[in-house]
Amino acid sequence: MYSIEELIAKIKQNMDGTYDGREPKNLYEPIAYALSVGGKRIRPVLCLMACNVFSDHLESAIKPAIGLETFHNFTLLHDDIMDAADVRRHQPTVHKKWDENTAILSGDAMMIEAYEYFFDLSPELMSQCLPIFNRTAREVCEGQQYDMEFENRWDVSEEEYLEMIRLKTAVLLAASLKIGAILGGASTQDADKIYQFGINMGLAFQLQDDYLDTFGDEKTFGKRIGGDIAENKKTYLLIHALKKGNSLLKNMLDDQQADEQEKIKAVTQIYRELKIDQLTEAKIKHYYQKALEALEAMDVNPEKTVLLRNFLNQLKSRVF
Amino acid sequence: MYSIEELIAKIKQNMDGTYDGREPKNLYEPIAYALSVGGKRIRPVLCLMACNVFSDHLESAIKPAIGLETFHNFTLLHDDIMDAADVRRHQPTVHKKWDENTAILSGDAMMIEAYEYFFDLSPELMSQCLPIFNRTAREVCEGQQYDMEFENRWDVSEEEYLEMIRLKTAVLLAASLKIGAILGGASTQDADKIYQFGINMGLAFQLQDDYLDTFGDEKTFGKRIGGDIAENKKTYLLIHALKKGNSLLKNMLDDQQADEQEKIKAVTQIYRELKIDQLTEAKIKHYYQKALEALEAMDVNPEKTVLLRNFLNQLKSRVF
Repeated sequence: MYSIEELIAKIKQNMDGTYDGREPKNLYEPIAYALSVGGKRIRPVLCLMACNVFSDHLESAIKPAIGLETFHNFTLLHDDIMDAADVRRHQPTVHKKWDENTAILSGDAMMIEAYEYFFDLSPELMSQCLPIFNRTAREVCEGQQYDMEFENRWDVSEEEYLEMIRLKTAVLLAASLKIGAILGGASTQDADKIYQFGINMGLAFQLQDDYLDTFGDEKTFGKRIGGDIAENKKTYLLIHALKKGNSLLKNMLDDQQADEQEKIKAVTQIYRELKIDQLTEAKIKHYYQKALEALEAMDVNPEKTVLLRNFLNQLKSRVF
Repeated sequence: MYSIEELIAKIKQNMDGTYDGREPKNLYEPIAYALSVGGKRIRPVLCLMACNVFSDHLESAIKPAIGLETFHNFTLLHDDIMDAADVRRHQPTVHKKWDENTAILSGDAMMIEAYEYFFDLSPELMSQCLPIFNRTAREVCEGQQYDMEFENRWDVSEEEYLEMIRLKTAVLLAASLKIGAILGGASTQDADKIYQFGINMGLAFQLQDDYLDTFGDEKTFGKRIGGDIAENKKTYLLIHALKKGNSLLKNMLDDQQADEQEKIKAVTQIYRELKIDQLTEAKIKHYYQKALEALEAMDVNPEKTVLLRNFLNQLKSRVF
């Protein structure tokens, strides 16, 4: 079985230099840049880990894994235009470093590139994997659309919110796992279970992100605490607090003049009083538990899923 | 053999209502709108015509044909953002009717939808057609990138210009034909020849567009005459005129204050004096001739290619 470090090295080795010298430069350099800004390569790592559960041979999964990472970085590139975000991972975003037209068109080309990584598969495997990838790609767009719509709505329900994060975050993690599993030779049942593992892990992860944005430690979280509160972002926390109909909270949100730090402090206090922290912790645990159950329900030697269990536990240990 | 009207009816019938009721509305309504604004459905018609050359059964080609049309309309949608175009085919563009974020994201979803139309094919056919489609999609992006770059350059060569229009316009026509031919059961040789037919037809068509923008008749051309000249657009005409180093022309182009109608008249006159009209006519004829030769080199009963020859002649008769 490969260690996570070996998997990351395999991915890096197969990504490096892909766009060197390709013309037109102003189309391909932004793609290389967007991919180099990096991140943790979670999706391709999950894809290869899932493959490795069912097979010792990862070769066929490497390119599709990079396709999934390429697609993910494409969504970030276009999302950054839509969110008018100037910085990602401490680097200027593509539309800042170049311009908006370059960001739109390079993003389009990047999405097209993502598909290219599936074309070395056998016709049978290609026809199994590409529809999963494509459905997922569409769902991620749907998630982004709901996310943008929620900015202008105050009546977002818990169900709508969970569906939005399922689409925007969870399905791509789940599809990465499922595609890896299929390429490793998993049965349909096991491929579906590893997909459920990914969905529940993704939901837990995103709720945790909401939680940590308010209750986390700036040093370990990596982002400033309270950003979501400052922006009135419809997080799981805010949606639940609004449901409880706290009038003090509504005043805080409507007050355009409020000092930001005071607002963050006050809203955090309200969340605590309403026990939103405990409620969210319970929900996160619930999804991590469901993820673990899906993993354990697979018809494989438990030794084979050690890395995925470790991965889940590492995500989980960010909070509690 | 199917008539062109029957083919268009088949396409329309299979496109109508595709996005009705799909959620989120603000993602899918702009797609339905962009597709309904219409156009001549040239790419899917060519795809089905090509299929019909080799087979009496068009069923397998209908969805891919619509995928090609969906992709084409996606490129128009994103190009309109990049070109800040407010109107297309007398209708407001998506980013005008909705907003820019909606246009970016709906465009992305539309491109993803285009792939979906290939997933009903057998694994063998899917693995033959999708790489052609994907390579073409990438080339269209490259063409758009070159087109944008040429706006800020005065030293575009004839070769560079022809390569740009090959990428931006010709390859998608050629790929539509090639994919249709493959789905009809064409040999590799014939599939390559019909691709060459498409490339040469596409080059001729685009050069003709350049020609008609200056020398055409407003009534039959459908666009105002002289738009390219007014905008200093690097067309085949301007590139050739610049190569001849006419100093009067350079002054006209640099003069920001010039009256538009006078500029159009003067530059048109210079083109005539430099015999750019004749030169362009000859080039257009050259490519139409090469297209016809590619068609006639195919190993099929000439009766089968009547519709494609008629199509070529109809395009050709726009000018001379």
